[in-house]
Amino acid sequence: MSVENLKDMNDLVSLSKRRGFIFQSSEIYGGLGSCWDYGPLGVELKNNMKETWWKSMTYRDDVDGVDASILMHPTTWKASGHVDNFTDPLVDCKQCKARFRADKVDIAAPCPSCGTKNSFTEPRLFNLMFQTFMGPVQDTASVVYLRPETAQGIFVNFLNVQSTMRRKLPFGIAQIGKAFRNEITPGNFIFRTREFEQMEMQYFIKPGTQKEFMEEWKQIRYQWHLDNGLRPEKLRFHPHGPGELAHYADAAMDIEYEFPIGWGEMEGIHSRTDFDLKQHQEFSGKNLNYVDQIDGNKKYLPYVIETSVGCDRSLLAVMCDAYRLENKGTEEERIVMKFKPHLAPIKVAVLPLVKKPEIDEPAYKLLKDLQKNFKCEYDTSGSIGKRYRRQDEIGTPFCVTFDFDTLNDNAVTVRDRDTMKQERVSIDQLKAYIQSKM
Amino acid sequence: MSVENLKDMNDLVSLSKRRGFIFQSSEIYGGLGSCWDYGPLGVELKNNMKETWWKSMTYRDDVDGVDASILMHPTTWKASGHVDNFTDPLVDCKQCKARFRADKVDIAAPCPSCGTKNSFTEPRLFNLMFQTFMGPVQDTASVVYLRPETAQGIFVNFLNVQSTMRRKLPFGIAQIGKAFRNEITPGNFIFRTREFEQMEMQYFIKPGTQKEFMEEWKQIRYQWHLDNGLRPEKLRFHPHGPGELAHYADAAMDIEYEFPIGWGEMEGIHSRTDFDLKQHQEFSGKNLNYVDQIDGNKKYLPYVIETSVGCDRSLLAVMCDAYRLENKGTEEERIVMKFKPHLAPIKVAVLPLVKKPEIDEPAYKLLKDLQKNFKCEYDTSGSIGKRYRRQDEIGTPFCVTFDFDTLNDNAVTVRDRDTMKQERVSIDQLKAYIQSKM
Repeated sequence: MSVENLKDMNDLVSLSKRRGFIFQSSEIYGGLGSCWDYGPLGVELKNNMKETWWKSMTYRDDVDGVDASILMHPTTWKASGHVDNFTDPLVDCKQCKARFRADKVDIAAPCPSCGTKNSFTEPRLFNLMFQTFMGPVQDTASVVYLRPETAQGIFVNFLNVQSTMRRKLPFGIAQIGKAFRNEITPGNFIFRTREFEQMEMQYFIKPGTQKEFMEEWKQIRYQWHLDNGLRPEKLRFHPHGPGELAHYADAAMDIEYEFPIGWGEMEGIHSRTDFDLKQHQEFSGKNLNYVDQIDGNKKYLPYVIETSVGCDRSLLAVMCDAYRLENKGTEEERIVMKFKPHLAPIKVAVLPLVKKPEIDEPAYKLLKDLQKNFKCEYDTSGSIGKRYRRQDEIGTPFCVTFDFDTLNDNAVTVRDRDTMKQERVSIDQLKAYIQSKM
Repeated sequence: MSVENLKDMNDLVSLSKRRGFIFQSSEIYGGLGSCWDYGPLGVELKNNMKETWWKSMTYRDDVDGVDASILMHPTTWKASGHVDNFTDPLVDCKQCKARFRADKVDIAAPCPSCGTKNSFTEPRLFNLMFQTFMGPVQDTASVVYLRPETAQGIFVNFLNVQSTMRRKLPFGIAQIGKAFRNEITPGNFIFRTREFEQMEMQYFIKPGTQKEFMEEWKQIRYQWHLDNGLRPEKLRFHPHGPGELAHYADAAMDIEYEFPIGWGEMEGIHSRTDFDLKQHQEFSGKNLNYVDQIDGNKKYLPYVIETSVGCDRSLLAVMCDAYRLENKGTEEERIVMKFKPHLAPIKVAVLPLVKKPEIDEPAYKLLKDLQKNFKCEYDTSGSIGKRYRRQDEIGTPFCVTFDFDTLNDNAVTVRDRDTMKQERVSIDQLKAYIQSKM
């Protein structure tokens, strides 16, 4: 059997559109710059991804969740440094007015758009935060921003969570939510988009313990990606050198995946020190100190280890990794998305062998029963082989065929997506059988 | 036993803050007008709410989900009528510059803010959509809006979903997501906020069948609120009279709940005709017709029944309804949140009777085991009675006490939140016991 992995991202873009994973946003209007909509299968995959992250991060006894609003008090972004520093340097071509990132274009060279030489303006700083106005009057007093990261929604809630949940260090606060960045050069499908979803966790610790907790979270987070089915040889750590470190960090480490477009960051693990809490304490005038009852009631600002993973990027990695083209050019050719069963958008396809009432009706009843526990599809059209191929392409781990024998033996044929092996399973045992394989 | 229901919303606001359900957004900066953050318990309650809606609406064989982006092509909102019509009339006081909704203030009366008579400007229309700019240049060409409703993300994806999922009428598309409205007079806690979450479903049907499907969805949706535990006497339908109907609807019906602030809309069920698809067809120039293979390949735009429920409002109703003050003024006084177990933020509290290693260590092991299946809390501080009260106040259905007998009989005491009855359950049976009660 020949097997090819995904080589060209366009093959995935096309599968995503064809099978209902991901559509261009507002496509009937020609799309909107680098925004994407999750279709019926994409939204299931994404929900499964978020659920597995949420459970692994908050079904522990030292991490609480929050869900902060996207619109926050604007001083938040003064304190975090985003108003002053979250900028890209841009240059304009004086001739054709095209605009480029100064660090991505050769200013000495001709304009890539119109070819004019020496046509660029001096670089100017352009803030990446989307801004809008709250309340009826558009003035500077009413400017608010779409959050460019979810992290600050955690930092401003640090005291509220710590006190209401009676937390002692170390403890974490986790959040899943949308963030927005007005990127000049977004692209590569859902790798870099202007609207995206982050899954972030800030772990508050005693200053001086950051090295051990950084190491611990590195391992936990790496394992999560492995548990999603990503191949170890496609995963690596990328430690930030001194020149790469953000202004808030004393150490940082990316988890990268080898996409068809090359290695790219999926997750960052950052030792943020007490930078953020210190800034918020200063700008809000509120005392954010933690009182350490174990250490003689010492008062201090906790340090923070942050784990920040892009939901869309993780999802992209899972899709790239799951993609297989088997037996290319032969009669057995198939595309199969080898999703881990817990991530697969559809868990079970119920396929009545023929479209006759004596098969169709009890098969439909079986579907209704399975739907109480699993996201299912019901497909009656085309040959069984064709229907298997359809389910392979969307990564459904189990196909359940209801045939004439079922009427006598009350059993169905369960076909495994990966091995294509078929097993006869009693309907009474079906739920338990599927559950045991997840 | 005396029982009081929630009478004053402030009691709920205070409980929400004290116990970590809902905090004011960016509270350390004095809050942000009518935005709220869900704390550790609130986010669990909200996630459970979203999950129960999602499963009930999409784990069926005639409804697909989507997750469209918040930023959409601006022509979407021209087509939907929001750019031209989604407005409130405002008047200014010429004296003090205070601004009011023209339909909420008596223009003939003195200004409520400064008392000046005859001081109001003529009413002017103020659009409720938040607008921002995409791309580096702030000009009219780059204006985009934060969606004021999720529905349009479904309509623009109608063709993509219908064709990729090979759907025949009737079928629905469901979505959960944030929407934003720059309300002039938001308020009443999370009842009316500027950032909120909608759970919407558009059900596409053959024109002429809207009455029967309206009736069907009314019943399904009413039952959902009952399944969340809301008391029937606090629920009612409010049909829109001819004067109340939105421009897109030929019939509409609200499901209202009796909050402490009075009856308020939680959900709208609307017969939207083909208004939206027709508008999008006209503005996009794309043919959105459905080809009815059952009815002689007739081509037409489907009609739509919409069910649109506010996630935050449903959650508020569930919190109001669950609240009980029992035995007020006595030694047995307690506040108990009688959440349905499937909605309760914490399912199980594990309480070691005393803080001694021989109890604490195996109790903690039991916690770790239960955490694989349930969101749990572990509480070691204070008397058992005090710890029960804490769990009552956050609505935890099961308290599991680990005592000295447990070391011998390998059983624990399970206390039921509502009846306060205690039962001895073998640890081997504990998971099954809890699952059977959910």
